[in-house]
Amino acid sequence: MRPSERLSLNQITTNRWSVAEAAEGCARAGIGAIGLWRDKVAEAGGAEAAARAVRRAGVTISSLCRGGFFTAPGALEDNRRAIAEAAALGTDLLVLVCGGLPEGSRDLPGARAMVRDGIAAVLDDAAAAGVRLGIEPLHPMFCADRSVIATLGEANRLAERFPPERVGVVVDAYHVWWDPCVEEEIARARVFAFHVDDWVLPLPAGALLGRGLPGEGCADLARLHRAVSAAGYTGPIEVEVLNQRVWDLAGDEVLARLRAGVDGDLGEPVRA
Amino acid sequence: MRPSERLSLNQITTNRWSVAEAAEGCARAGIGAIGLWRDKVAEAGGAEAAARAVRRAGVTISSLCRGGFFTAPGALEDNRRAIAEAAALGTDLLVLVCGGLPEGSRDLPGARAMVRDGIAAVLDDAAAAGVRLGIEPLHPMFCADRSVIATLGEANRLAERFPPERVGVVVDAYHVWWDPCVEEEIARARVFAFHVDDWVLPLPAGALLGRGLPGEGCADLARLHRAVSAAGYTGPIEVEVLNQRVWDLAGDEVLARLRAGVDGDLGEPVRA
Repeated sequence: MRPSERLSLNQITTNRWSVAEAAEGCARAGIGAIGLWRDKVAEAGGAEAAARAVRRAGVTISSLCRGGFFTAPGALEDNRRAIAEAAALGTDLLVLVCGGLPEGSRDLPGARAMVRDGIAAVLDDAAAAGVRLGIEPLHPMFCADRSVIATLGEANRLAERFPPERVGVVVDAYHVWWDPCVEEEIARARVFAFHVDDWVLPLPAGALLGRGLPGEGCADLARLHRAVSAAGYTGPIEVEVLNQRVWDLAGDEVLARLRAGVDGDLGEPVRA
Repeated sequence: MRPSERLSLNQITTNRWSVAEAAEGCARAGIGAIGLWRDKVAEAGGAEAAARAVRRAGVTISSLCRGGFFTAPGALEDNRRAIAEAAALGTDLLVLVCGGLPEGSRDLPGARAMVRDGIAAVLDDAAAAGVRLGIEPLHPMFCADRSVIATLGEANRLAERFPPERVGVVVDAYHVWWDPCVEEEIARARVFAFHVDDWVLPLPAGALLGRGLPGEGCADLARLHRAVSAAGYTGPIEVEVLNQRVWDLAGDEVLARLRAGVDGDLGEPVRA
């Protein structure tokens, strides 16, 4: 099976497309799965309507982005809503971006404790809904404002506090490629998802929209693919690219490029 | 002793000043030490002339920035020159920024091996010159282009391959503040220098010039100061800030601000 046959389109990669447009684009490109974002689901008329639009295109929903931000006010209620939306969409995976430092705080250990307590607080809701929680460590450059969980090691230690069938990690190439411990941490990880995207330079102002399509940058995606495969992961390979240059392209062009990039760059997986 | 009494000015913080101007500025501000940069030393007429200018101001030289970039062509010769310059300046510490991925490469383990081999190759030169090599792990957002040594853990593992009196690490707040293992890695580190600067948002394009003066951002400098003190470090507290906004200020104003920021934010050190 070629990597592109396991592709999922994380819909932020084609940010101008609605849920229906993205699902239809996937169908045209032969991409069988899609990861949705909550703002786009809301724009589609809610989870049931979004799920119908995706089903109509013959595509499955691999994940919902995103829960988390446990260091912000109102986080628990928001995460419960996200869990309910994931269940209504028919996906069993909610991706967690855990949240940065609370406003005005420098207390990193305290913020990390808030994340731990937040996950614990919504765990029963997730179990009742049949939804798994995937902790996505973000690149350390997002530690202050987006995720105090900044390494796969920290994400693993956090996930390991919870039942293995319920809480795991999302390995995103852009966020973890630089880590000297990435292979040993993937080997011990409960890999719930594998996101591919690439490290390209220079970083744009604000850093958020600096990712490249697979193959455009210097992250060794084949190495990471081998590692998640060796760890037993056989799920979707989800492409998630936040980049204004990519968003300015036609969606079909983006999908063609990412298919080619994934097949060109991920190489053959090790059989689990 | 207040933190400001142990201050060193890393001269890139007042980037418009020459060596002589920076040394005289330190003298006016009651700052007893300065860390020099090689380009500024060259502009001052070379190491001997720069050393005379600093001595004339009654200031000592705490370190020379920088050696390293072991993944680039000609690295060994350049590092040998840097070692000779440090010795001629009368400082015993050369800071190493180890270098990013070689042009066109995605081979991180290979690049890290080049760094290890590069340090090994110049170790005898450093010993003969009485110069110590301080490996400075940079923030992971610089892994591709500036330093494949991106965590203090990796820097420690690298330093531990070499004699403890010769190779250690530089703990720079901006680069390591986010690390969930920072306290345990500082505890085991051979701390050759402690750099303070702060994490401020948003990152500018290119990310290089995004640092804040101590106290402006969200790095917990007091926590890091306690950790290096507990590890036995009693050397200079060197302020190193790369930021166009800071560079646009008058140098004396920058020195006044960093004195205040350091005393306000570093708190009382733990007695080693």
